[in-house]
Amino acid sequence: MSDTAVDRDTATEAALADLATGLPEGVLSTDPDVLASYSIDRAMFAEPGRPIALVRARDREQVQHVMRTATRHRIPVVPQGARSGLSGAATASDGCILLNVERMNQIVEIDPANRLVVTQPGIFNADLSRAVGEHGLYYPPDPSSWEFCSIGGNLSTNSGGLCCVKYGVTTDYVLGLELVLADGQVLRTGRRTVKGVAGYDLTKLIVGSEGTLGVITEATLMLRPKTEQPLTVVATYGSCEEAAAAVSAVVACGVQPSLLEFMDRASIDAVNEAFNMGFDDDVQAVLLAQSDIGGDHAVRQIAQLEECFAAAGGDVMVAEDPAEGEALLAARRQVLTAFERFGTTMIDDVCVPRDKLVELVHGTRALAEKYSLMVGVVGHAGDGNFHPTVCFDPTDAEQTRRAQELFDAIMELSLDLGGTITGEHGVGTLKLDLLEREVGQLSLELHRRVKAAFDPLGILNPGKVFRA
Amino acid sequence: MSDTAVDRDTATEAALADLATGLPEGVLSTDPDVLASYSIDRAMFAEPGRPIALVRARDREQVQHVMRTATRHRIPVVPQGARSGLSGAATASDGCILLNVERMNQIVEIDPANRLVVTQPGIFNADLSRAVGEHGLYYPPDPSSWEFCSIGGNLSTNSGGLCCVKYGVTTDYVLGLELVLADGQVLRTGRRTVKGVAGYDLTKLIVGSEGTLGVITEATLMLRPKTEQPLTVVATYGSCEEAAAAVSAVVACGVQPSLLEFMDRASIDAVNEAFNMGFDDDVQAVLLAQSDIGGDHAVRQIAQLEECFAAAGGDVMVAEDPAEGEALLAARRQVLTAFERFGTTMIDDVCVPRDKLVELVHGTRALAEKYSLMVGVVGHAGDGNFHPTVCFDPTDAEQTRRAQELFDAIMELSLDLGGTITGEHGVGTLKLDLLEREVGQLSLELHRRVKAAFDPLGILNPGKVFRA
Repeated sequence: MSDTAVDRDTATEAALADLATGLPEGVLSTDPDVLASYSIDRAMFAEPGRPIALVRARDREQVQHVMRTATRHRIPVVPQGARSGLSGAATASDGCILLNVERMNQIVEIDPANRLVVTQPGIFNADLSRAVGEHGLYYPPDPSSWEFCSIGGNLSTNSGGLCCVKYGVTTDYVLGLELVLADGQVLRTGRRTVKGVAGYDLTKLIVGSEGTLGVITEATLMLRPKTEQPLTVVATYGSCEEAAAAVSAVVACGVQPSLLEFMDRASIDAVNEAFNMGFDDDVQAVLLAQSDIGGDHAVRQIAQLEECFAAAGGDVMVAEDPAEGEALLAARRQVLTAFERFGTTMIDDVCVPRDKLVELVHGTRALAEKYSLMVGVVGHAGDGNFHPTVCFDPTDAEQTRRAQELFDAIMELSLDLGGTITGEHGVGTLKLDLLEREVGQLSLELHRRVKAAFDPLGILNPGKVFRA
Repeated sequence: MSDTAVDRDTATEAALADLATGLPEGVLSTDPDVLASYSIDRAMFAEPGRPIALVRARDREQVQHVMRTATRHRIPVVPQGARSGLSGAATASDGCILLNVERMNQIVEIDPANRLVVTQPGIFNADLSRAVGEHGLYYPPDPSSWEFCSIGGNLSTNSGGLCCVKYGVTTDYVLGLELVLADGQVLRTGRRTVKGVAGYDLTKLIVGSEGTLGVITEATLMLRPKTEQPLTVVATYGSCEEAAAAVSAVVACGVQPSLLEFMDRASIDAVNEAFNMGFDDDVQAVLLAQSDIGGDHAVRQIAQLEECFAAAGGDVMVAEDPAEGEALLAARRQVLTAFERFGTTMIDDVCVPRDKLVELVHGTRALAEKYSLMVGVVGHAGDGNFHPTVCFDPTDAEQTRRAQELFDAIMELSLDLGGTITGEHGVGTLKLDLLEREVGQLSLELHRRVKAAFDPLGILNPGKVFRA
């Protein structure tokens, strides 16, 4: 044992020396406190391993140097951006190099004539969105964490957000990528054109691969014309079934809202108690919808949504102007903050067929009762993507165990309803065991072979998404 | 030599016997005339090899049987649908089994509540579109060949069409696939939900892979609400520069047409001569745009497009109703038929950044003069995806050689302009040599490794897209 430990230390020392040789001052850190603080993302129950070093790369060459060194010494590398992920994909593994790209946060080019932006991965989603907004352009993917999540992380987990019901997810906006492979070579995928079918779509394969295939150092993203200030309509329902009927009516009538959100009774209780929102006791569900199409057409869309909402038995309110609309949305936006007053929260991220809302909400409520824990269901009703949020006391070991079991049970419920274990947060380490149930052994075997095609030594984020 | 030939024949006989054992009457054919007729698709200069058999599979089990037999005997398999492809991906290779799925043409399920369709691959695009249309739903990808191309082929080449400028391409509509792997196992990818990030996006990797990774036996496709009857606006220009300025103005103003098409002078000449369209002699370019958003909003969009078109110097005409709009579109739709009156046509398929229209058209004209051949440029101006069409006499060997060189030179021009060699037709055998120039050696090496992950023996459509 001690021999092995000594061997490992000698090997680590040699690797660290090689690593240091190619990096300028202030890029490499081995300080234990710094390493500890960079070892985690925002995932629950993702116990970090102990890294040997942190590299906060400033450019592609430094990323290449890290990967070449890691290849030479067979050291695992964990790529990181803003570490806002909820599934543990950016948590440290034992003996790894943390390769953080948060300093690579510059926009390389905004090209309004071709409606695209070329950017480094470390930029925050909100900063990119504001920068392109100044050119009258719009980058749709809008995760709730947009003020503190990076584009590189968005690419690595194929992030969604509130706008997906109309505008789709990250992968729909990626034209091309530059990434550093496990051996340090630079691969460029895709192109600057909006169409292109020359060869395999490696771009979309890399999007959502959670840092297991390469380290993204640049992305070319498609943009849309800026949208109009949205109009908002809200409805409250005496039952979940009525709210679900309203969602189905919206789908059936063909109107395309730019947002269609749902809150269940537990979420309503939480915002009532935390922020005195004043929803009535008999309200069992809330729906919120927006139209960003502008002008009379938006007014007409809102009227259509109002009709769908009312016909299903809702108490409907239309905001007079965008500011009032934002006030109505506040309840939805503050649900997670409200839950945090009742304990530590663990946010699930299931997606079910759009017509399975009732089954998901009732099933989750039954599970909450079974496990004697508070769970609120909020989410993107227009996509069937919900975030059942489990509240628990992490100082209570028995309750914590129940919370974990409940979290997994909600994913099993989603699979039973024909859904998926993750709509936008990714697998990371948190959902490793459930991925196999969702995709099956044959698919996992192909995952492993595709991974080996990119990373034959298995040094890129090993143990994330699936086991080697 | 003769020994080898005898060995090969014996091996082939054994393989054919195995193949026949698992297939019912009428599925397997070795008739030389039938094999010859199924050995080609619609690609020019894709010299077919000699297949050993044709299997017209009726179900997934027959596809599995073919792949298991092919694996056992190490025989190449060329998957085929309606054989409407223009790049040779479905042409026979020597000694292959042609595995045709045109008989697997049933819709499995239409699910309006979740806006999706589950279908077999052999159905024609138009038949699928009409079937979902009866449920008030819309499958956007609309290649010009939609009446005689199959969904399986659309998936395999990631087809586009006229609607892409607003609605994207095939990959944007694929939720999940069932495919038979090289060894006969059945892989299911994706899901029925509109969002989902569990594991690698194998679905989008398979879309556009031209039958080299597996044989698609079922697809789950996302649908949209049916659109309104489109309104149409047309403008003629005295120069290509003016038309390009109009396209840029449309992009800049943020209006989203559902179609934005371009014709150059050579195309105008062709339709004038073939169909007596009556465009004036001083017209150098035509733009056509549509709005399918409906109601007053469509009228307003058309007015915006009219303004963009006119401000750039165009002579603008707005159709009074959808029927008149369709009449105006006739010129665009008949360009290829018109060209066919002037010789055999070879349709290129380049895509350039949207602001490179002038460079592409003038560059193509200069090449047409250099090679002394007629080339017309039509295409999807809103995407930068153009189809320069070379007319030549295939009975004239020297002219045929020039046509091929010109075809390649247009792709080189597109690459020089930051574009791609194919926007929607695929690589097949026709563009093998140019793929390497576009994606580079490292990317090709990754293509080969990904291919090996799915098809370790290299029996699936070998020699298509890239060389082994």
